[in-house]
Amino acid sequence: MKFCSHCGEKVEHKIPQGDNRPRYVCNSCDLVHYQNPRIIAGYIAEYEDKILLCKRAIEPRHGLWTLPAGFMENQETTLQAAKRETFEEANAQISNSQLFCTISIPYISQVYIMYRGELVDGFSKPGIESIETDLYTEQQIPWDNLAFPIITESLKLYFSDKNKGQFNLYDGEMLRDENQKIITNIYSK
Amino acid sequence: MKFCSHCGEKVEHKIPQGDNRPRYVCNSCDLVHYQNPRIIAGYIAEYEDKILLCKRAIEPRHGLWTLPAGFMENQETTLQAAKRETFEEANAQISNSQLFCTISIPYISQVYIMYRGELVDGFSKPGIESIETDLYTEQQIPWDNLAFPIITESLKLYFSDKNKGQFNLYDGEMLRDENQKIITNIYSK
Repeated sequence: MKFCSHCGEKVEHKIPQGDNRPRYVCNSCDLVHYQNPRIIAGYIAEYEDKILLCKRAIEPRHGLWTLPAGFMENQETTLQAAKRETFEEANAQISNSQLFCTISIPYISQVYIMYRGELVDGFSKPGIESIETDLYTEQQIPWDNLAFPIITESLKLYFSDKNKGQFNLYDGEMLRDENQKIITNIYSK
Repeated sequence: MKFCSHCGEKVEHKIPQGDNRPRYVCNSCDLVHYQNPRIIAGYIAEYEDKILLCKRAIEPRHGLWTLPAGFMENQETTLQAAKRETFEEANAQISNSQLFCTISIPYISQVYIMYRGELVDGFSKPGIESIETDLYTEQQIPWDNLAFPIITESLKLYFSDKNKGQFNLYDGEMLRDENQKIITNIYSK
């Protein structure tokens, strides 16, 4: 951020009066431009023991597999966002939705909010952001070709619960240690 | 938003190519300025059957009572944000944290993520955003002087569970109907 979106003058990165962390502040109109984490909402959609995955037609991770998920928009609920993304990416509808996990990823300032539910009629068809959509059992999941660590983690939690015959609800975080290795902590269920 | 924060030229509110909803788009550098919901993280902190509330020293709702809560910052987890806000507003520490509810409020593009936990030593002291902090039983809660409907709703869910002797985890939404009346739907637990 270089310019004030309100008045067009230059912004400065400094700690505003009464605050305790640097923000972009307009030198002309004094407006403080707050920046906050974004929510990514998505689905683990099941049909006959198989999970819906989408092969990404966009960067990042073009050609790798992911759960339908994307940035929540203003004026939506988290559930509406998850349903919209699933429809946009896979033309798929979901029933019997339940919140499954909330995972913070502070190193990219994102919070994933994932639902689980039943894929209606087992139907999917690629939307413009997907090359391909398909249904996979736990054994068939392309574990080595998943797009993001959070997707791998969500699927692992899901199948672990599914195999136990009982679903919990998870809250957790994915961090990077000093060697940039990703550490996952699930700190409540 | 009137100006591009990247190049300082004027933005236009229009549907970008390949998108399906209006965004602020720079006419000069073509940057699309996405706007997304913000997360508010907070705590229901209990000590000896009493809950920590803060009397607001800031607008909106100056002088009304609230749970410690505030906007999540970049590079935080939701739990860190809830703890930081509780410390900033009430100089209070929490132990045994558990996620309690995630509530979307689409008409203000916010998602509340509330934790529950134990207030360490029952200690609190007003931070700069609070006039006063205090502990209240269910009967003592100033129900008619709470700052926001989401606070009332979170406390109602909490005491309902507490009285049953078992805490669930809730996902829900608060909407406004055509008469601007607030409708609360708790759609998973």
